[in-house]
Amino acid sequence: MAATRILLSESELPRAWYNIQADLPKSAPPPLHPATKKPIGPADLAPLFPMELIKQEVSRDRFIDIPEEVLDIYRLWRPTPLQRAYRLERLLKTPARIYYKNESVSPTGSHKPNTAVAQAFYNKQEGVRRLVTETGAGQWGSALSFACSCFGLDCTVYMVRVSFEQKPYRRVLMETYGATVHASPTDLTDAGKTIRAIDPQSPGSLGIAISEAVEDAARHDDTKYALGSVLNHVLLHQTITGLEAKKQFEMIGEYPDVLIGCVGGGSNFSGFVFPFVPDKLDGKRKPRLVAVEPEACPSLTKGLYRYDFGDTIGSTPLIKMHTLGHSFIPAPIHAGGLRYHGAAPLLCLLHDEKLIDAIAYSQNPVFEAAMQFAATEGIIPAPESAHAIRAAIDEAIRCRETGEPKVIAFLLSGHGHFDMAAYEQYLAGKLEDSAFPADRLSQIEADLPKVE
Amino acid sequence: MAATRILLSESELPRAWYNIQADLPKSAPPPLHPATKKPIGPADLAPLFPMELIKQEVSRDRFIDIPEEVLDIYRLWRPTPLQRAYRLERLLKTPARIYYKNESVSPTGSHKPNTAVAQAFYNKQEGVRRLVTETGAGQWGSALSFACSCFGLDCTVYMVRVSFEQKPYRRVLMETYGATVHASPTDLTDAGKTIRAIDPQSPGSLGIAISEAVEDAARHDDTKYALGSVLNHVLLHQTITGLEAKKQFEMIGEYPDVLIGCVGGGSNFSGFVFPFVPDKLDGKRKPRLVAVEPEACPSLTKGLYRYDFGDTIGSTPLIKMHTLGHSFIPAPIHAGGLRYHGAAPLLCLLHDEKLIDAIAYSQNPVFEAAMQFAATEGIIPAPESAHAIRAAIDEAIRCRETGEPKVIAFLLSGHGHFDMAAYEQYLAGKLEDSAFPADRLSQIEADLPKVE
Repeated sequence: MAATRILLSESELPRAWYNIQADLPKSAPPPLHPATKKPIGPADLAPLFPMELIKQEVSRDRFIDIPEEVLDIYRLWRPTPLQRAYRLERLLKTPARIYYKNESVSPTGSHKPNTAVAQAFYNKQEGVRRLVTETGAGQWGSALSFACSCFGLDCTVYMVRVSFEQKPYRRVLMETYGATVHASPTDLTDAGKTIRAIDPQSPGSLGIAISEAVEDAARHDDTKYALGSVLNHVLLHQTITGLEAKKQFEMIGEYPDVLIGCVGGGSNFSGFVFPFVPDKLDGKRKPRLVAVEPEACPSLTKGLYRYDFGDTIGSTPLIKMHTLGHSFIPAPIHAGGLRYHGAAPLLCLLHDEKLIDAIAYSQNPVFEAAMQFAATEGIIPAPESAHAIRAAIDEAIRCRETGEPKVIAFLLSGHGHFDMAAYEQYLAGKLEDSAFPADRLSQIEADLPKVE
Repeated sequence: MAATRILLSESELPRAWYNIQADLPKSAPPPLHPATKKPIGPADLAPLFPMELIKQEVSRDRFIDIPEEVLDIYRLWRPTPLQRAYRLERLLKTPARIYYKNESVSPTGSHKPNTAVAQAFYNKQEGVRRLVTETGAGQWGSALSFACSCFGLDCTVYMVRVSFEQKPYRRVLMETYGATVHASPTDLTDAGKTIRAIDPQSPGSLGIAISEAVEDAARHDDTKYALGSVLNHVLLHQTITGLEAKKQFEMIGEYPDVLIGCVGGGSNFSGFVFPFVPDKLDGKRKPRLVAVEPEACPSLTKGLYRYDFGDTIGSTPLIKMHTLGHSFIPAPIHAGGLRYHGAAPLLCLLHDEKLIDAIAYSQNPVFEAAMQFAATEGIIPAPESAHAIRAAIDEAIRCRETGEPKVIAFLLSGHGHFDMAAYEQYLAGKLEDSAFPADRLSQIEADLPKVE
């Protein structure tokens, strides 16, 4: 029997990220300035991001070298294992071979440090003293806190107040890495004060937290802003997972027929599948690439491919993406990391070009899959990651019916150690399946900013 | 620079556990029946344990084969990495080389599944349908729940009520693996009813939970009991960590000058260091073996080496060990896994023979070490494991002073993802350093059962 875990040695750790902008079937539409609606340039982004990340955002180089200092941190947990889910296969009685790339082994338990470490490094190199960000469920805030601790940067996290109160241990995790965590909205920014003047008890939202973080960064010369998904440079850094997985499949003489990942902003999915896209473009291989989203927030499966704001309140550049409208507030499902009204523009372009498929699931079948995974593979998956597991299991069940011995690969984006309240609700039969509101589809159009 | 993580391939996973009973400088004193004070035999243990484990308890075979079914489960996460703590070394400016065996990567986040999986397997093989155990902090209960789910066994966990209420997520973790968890004392056993009749609000204790679990197992023909530390067969199964570490050190041409682990019952420490004891006995090498315990419960550093009960209420066989007296209730430190009045008899024998050293630390310096480890290596350690980190850091600081480039190795027994309340208290400056009560030493003698 072949190995359960396919491991790469440290010397096989990829030395460069893969930049899909070198291989796109057509150019990505540029981001537009929110006021002028004209394409934005590097100068517009300079107050928020270091120049190296701005360059990566628009680079057409196929590979971008990973700095040695970043590799040094990656080596704490990378390369990550590609694992064969033998026990899950047996449970499902499937002829399919199921593999998962296990990103739950990182220090903060998800794929997020892959970009957090890179972003912290480039900021440090350009003299930045402090990074500011927002966090909802807490995975991104934890990853950036860890990354800042690696390079001696201060870190300030605006955490959505309702999460701050409901998930105190995520906050403590960030503080253990030395970060300062504020319950957003705060009285520290104009954005926060404005909201609190209207509603002193505001539970906050990711949109408000973004506004606070951006304002904080823009106001302080020694401070910049960091984002955990959506942007091109974030997806670039996440390709480390797909590049490793490709090597691992080569080692064992396999090639995936289907690659699966969950999509919120889209960074874990894109990082996993983008390195396989060139094979598909040149016709050498035909892997299906399947993005999985929650039915409560089906940006790819139901959204319009249009220019929209990246945030809720409409202060960011306009990006062309599949969107449910920036004012859409999804139901409070437990997979908080998937509650985003849009998705990464590079991912959306490839979806629009029919190179990437998308499907949506509701919560209960997703947690059912999570339980099967925990019982067979031992790992308690994050609710977000469980969406990918659900899709992989359904594919394996189809294989049982057709007899096809397909190779199915999914990205396990993180563990659920800080999400046990969700499992508690599921076990108690109290989890609600929130569908996408039927009347919302017709309202998206009116919600979009006018472009030309 | 040499690798950060020294990885073994799956084919290098050890195929047999190491049994130190083959190499002891003198025979281990036998356990005695609590009533007759005569050595107990297999028949005394048969109601509680399957015959294969009873055989392992007294075996003198140097190596005991690991069943293929157990190896199949081990392969989900084993071999575990031996990691070089480069970043911690740099922080400490030490010439020492610090390595840690990372057991936090197991499904439930600690070394406990190493024995839980083996115990569940042997019980399954002998027709047992259900396993019962007790848990305090929850690490052991989680591991046995996982192991039972692997082999289709039912699992019942008596969880100390105060932990049941304060650590709901540990309970949910066990339930996610399919276990039934009761807050102990319950009304399901005579032991529980007796306690509740006296104190309906009893917060419970590990001693009470043990009594309940043992009673439950003894009463049901299809049910046996499982223990997570202390017993010889538990230490045997844990040697997988030390055997792997030995191979890993050989791979890189190093040999540890010091091996360090935390001690509660003693299983993680013993499993790590026992495979190195033969080298010490035959004089080939002279590694220092350092057991680290909390000052609040210093069994090895301050206890008497005498026969005592294994549990609090005096119902188990008598074992010869370093003990603080079975009625001693340690202060409620956060390292709940280290609050045991005694320690494993095999470990105590070697300590009495001066082959193993012991030291004790109080909570605040331990958490200070945990913070340094998190900041440099990224992993949030369990409070128990942080005791070993403290000792390793102190050894490295001594090396800085003397200039010795020692090789320091410690076992990271688990992560602290379910212990963030402890970090919260530490960060808030609210952690108390509980010393061992000054008057307790003189009371141990009176607490011990009379033998001959």
